Amino acid sequence: MTSFKTETINERLIQEVKGFIGQDNRQAIKKLVDEMRAADLADLLEHLAPDERLFIFKFLEPEGAGDVLVEIEPSVQGRILEDLDSKAISDIVEELDSDDAADLVGDLPAERAREVIDAVTDDVSEELGRLLPYPEDTAGGIMALEFVAIKSDATVRDAIETVREKRGEVENLYYLWVIDDFERLVGVISMKDLVLEPPEREIGSIMNPEIISVHVDTDQEEVAHLVKKYDLVTIPVVNGNNRLVGRITHDDIIDVIEDEADEDISLMAGVIHQEFAEESPLKISRARLPWLIAGLFGGVLAAVVIKQFESSLEKILALSFFFPVIMAMGGNTGTQASTIAVRGLATGDIGLMNIGKRLWVELKVALVNGIICGILLGLIVSFWLSDYALGFIVALSMVLIVLNSGVIGAAVPLAMKRLNIDPALATGPFVTTLNDILSLLIYLGLVTIYLYVTT
Amino acid sequence: MTSFKTETINERLIQEVKGFIGQDNRQAIKKLVDEMRAADLADLLEHLAPDERLFIFKFLEPEGAGDVLVEIEPSVQGRILEDLDSKAISDIVEELDSDDAADLVGDLPAERAREVIDAVTDDVSEELGRLLPYPEDTAGGIMALEFVAIKSDATVRDAIETVREKRGEVENLYYLWVIDDFERLVGVISMKDLVLEPPEREIGSIMNPEIISVHVDTDQEEVAHLVKKYDLVTIPVVNGNNRLVGRITHDDIIDVIEDEADEDISLMAGVIHQEFAEESPLKISRARLPWLIAGLFGGVLAAVVIKQFESSLEKILALSFFFPVIMAMGGNTGTQASTIAVRGLATGDIGLMNIGKRLWVELKVALVNGIICGILLGLIVSFWLSDYALGFIVALSMVLIVLNSGVIGAAVPLAMKRLNIDPALATGPFVTTLNDILSLLIYLGLVTIYLYVTT
Repeated sequence: MTSFKTETINERLIQEVKGFIGQDNRQAIKKLVDEMRAADLADLLEHLAPDERLFIFKFLEPEGAGDVLVEIEPSVQGRILEDLDSKAISDIVEELDSDDAADLVGDLPAERAREVIDAVTDDVSEELGRLLPYPEDTAGGIMALEFVAIKSDATVRDAIETVREKRGEVENLYYLWVIDDFERLVGVISMKDLVLEPPEREIGSIMNPEIISVHVDTDQEEVAHLVKKYDLVTIPVVNGNNRLVGRITHDDIIDVIEDEADEDISLMAGVIHQEFAEESPLKISRARLPWLIAGLFGGVLAAVVIKQFESSLEKILALSFFFPVIMAMGGNTGTQASTIAVRGLATGDIGLMNIGKRLWVELKVALVNGIICGILLGLIVSFWLSDYALGFIVALSMVLIVLNSGVIGAAVPLAMKRLNIDPALATGPFVTTLNDILSLLIYLGLVTIYLYVTT
Repeated sequence: MTSFKTETINERLIQEVKGFIGQDNRQAIKKLVDEMRAADLADLLEHLAPDERLFIFKFLEPEGAGDVLVEIEPSVQGRILEDLDSKAISDIVEELDSDDAADLVGDLPAERAREVIDAVTDDVSEELGRLLPYPEDTAGGIMALEFVAIKSDATVRDAIETVREKRGEVENLYYLWVIDDFERLVGVISMKDLVLEPPEREIGSIMNPEIISVHVDTDQEEVAHLVKKYDLVTIPVVNGNNRLVGRITHDDIIDVIEDEADEDISLMAGVIHQEFAEESPLKISRARLPWLIAGLFGGVLAAVVIKQFESSLEKILALSFFFPVIMAMGGNTGTQASTIAVRGLATGDIGLMNIGKRLWVELKVALVNGIICGILLGLIVSFWLSDYALGFIVALSMVLIVLNSGVIGAAVPLAMKRLNIDPALATGPFVTTLNDILSLLIYLGLVTIYLYVTT
């Protein structure tokens, strides 16, 4: 029974490999490298020191090295490439699929990229020249040039011959695209159909003409939406004349979906482009500081607002006890509403056309939650400090604060989407600071009116 | 040129359809239903009123109705099913793939589920009986029973015949699994190989024995990890004896990846199981209130803490101005660190074994950010209030607060992961409240020591 289990990289394996390297046990390393899958080897390399990585990397043939390299996380990949000479990189690039090759070369410093492009074969440099101009987050930027296209007047036999010719070049082949004499995309046929239909049948008569394609300029998020919505495994990419120019496969789509979710999450957390596995404190600090400093100035603004109500505070010092709960409730309500709106928009569950309805729902939610939280807090304050008037005011503030924060939290991302700004930015310091300030104004304003009326 | 573009459901189309329904224009509706893709029709139905949905739904044959139903979001799906009788549901269930059928029946109220199971054919009820016991978030819970398996001693010709027999039953067929005489999984062969290899060749001699499979009990998140890591399009599911029992396809994996990201995001936002498209204010309120109330009690606790330092506050009222910035900085730092840790763990970018290293990195980040923010805030406070001593204390507090919050933010999810608790819970009110309280204690504690020393 030869059922291979996946390799989990554990501390024991890592120590073993470090041992092999220390003893210069080339035979053991060669055996290991030959037996492990590329993705597992990539995992292993991520856990080694730079010189250890390079030691192992040298045992790989260019093709295997490429497979491993594309699986390694970007920061480690960059460091390995720094240590390789342009010749070694060129050899690897020649073995990669066109999309991976373009990604790798696109990430190199300009100087090195030029050296590599000059060193690879004409075929490969022509492919790189075709792919590199597309922005990274478009269909053109993630597509590969390895696909199989056949004319609609070809037979099943012809198609099978074409598959045979491209056998080595195109891995993971599940569909053939059908094109007309002008290379325009007109249909699709599955490998299953090729297996089952008689050899002499014409492709045009058995293909499915209802084919979903994307334009080279289509945003990758939109591509992911289509793939998800129609459960596609691969999607063809066409240019302005509907000419077939590339294909995007399911694994690239999975990466897009995860990247988009991670991007939303990073913005929610107040972090800009931080790789999860980044280990340089300065790089991490740079990703996080802008948000922290924005929050700091928001906090200073809040301090300025509070100072305006100094005389109220002098009369009732206990007012300040509730700053944290006021801020927390405004912040939490706003985050809840904005996050649901941001993710709903990103996944397509909230359409732009029912914005009004969405806000109406959020208003009702905020009213219910505000009243419940208001009563609860009012009772606690009343009994704890035996000050029923303060309790009532805190309760009333809470209702208004939750109402205000909930509506703002939902409205800002929806409005940003309409203005074509990334709504995920709304979950960052902007809405939070706005809600902090407004919450304080509502609370201290109500108190001050109360003090003015009663004295 | 017959390149079909995807249908975007817009306000105009919706109004048109509502018009057809109002005029009882059955011909126009029939035409529309026949022409639209299931996923687009599902989109359209989501935007109609319940009686309009049902009116259109009645035009669908059971098979088409099933395709549409599985694409509709859960809350709308539930309402449509409520309006259908058990006979209609049974007809639909019989046409669905086994995994979709089990999901649909599993979501029905127990009484109705039993009626449906009794009404479907024996084949289908046997399949339901096999799938329903598996928990929803395991490989067994998301697998389908539609796959093609062949013996390793069969020929390519035999395999093609098997594909022909199962043509209608198994859609999206890209790989055949190879089994031994005990139905144990021993290899995989692609449709491409079936196309290219000679008919008389034995499957066992051309199959790939290095097959990655999952056990029925494997958590769906782990399944998604494997599919992502090894770029699989479909993964076989085996039972304890390594017998092949089902398959999971890429579209189900995409759903899992999105669900897991949404789950993490929901917990970050302080929301439990809220559907993005949920429209019932009471249901939304119920999803959000627990977090709000937890935050409320955290805020009350903060108030209790502040009250302990009443005498310090009486001496310097301006201390209270900085409560918001103290809370915000502690909160933001903690959220940044915990979110990166949670997502890094979820995507596998942070391994459990380098926890110590991770914490060390976070400590350094927090130190850098704390010093920068501390100096900045210290300068602002010093010049604004012309109180350099207060400025210094606020600055010192800020360094300690950022240091404390950053380390706690990273440590709590990592510790939870080690204890097998979902680390995403750490991004919720627990860490935030903890950081709020600790931040206030650091700030007010330092101030009080200073006042004690100087008076």
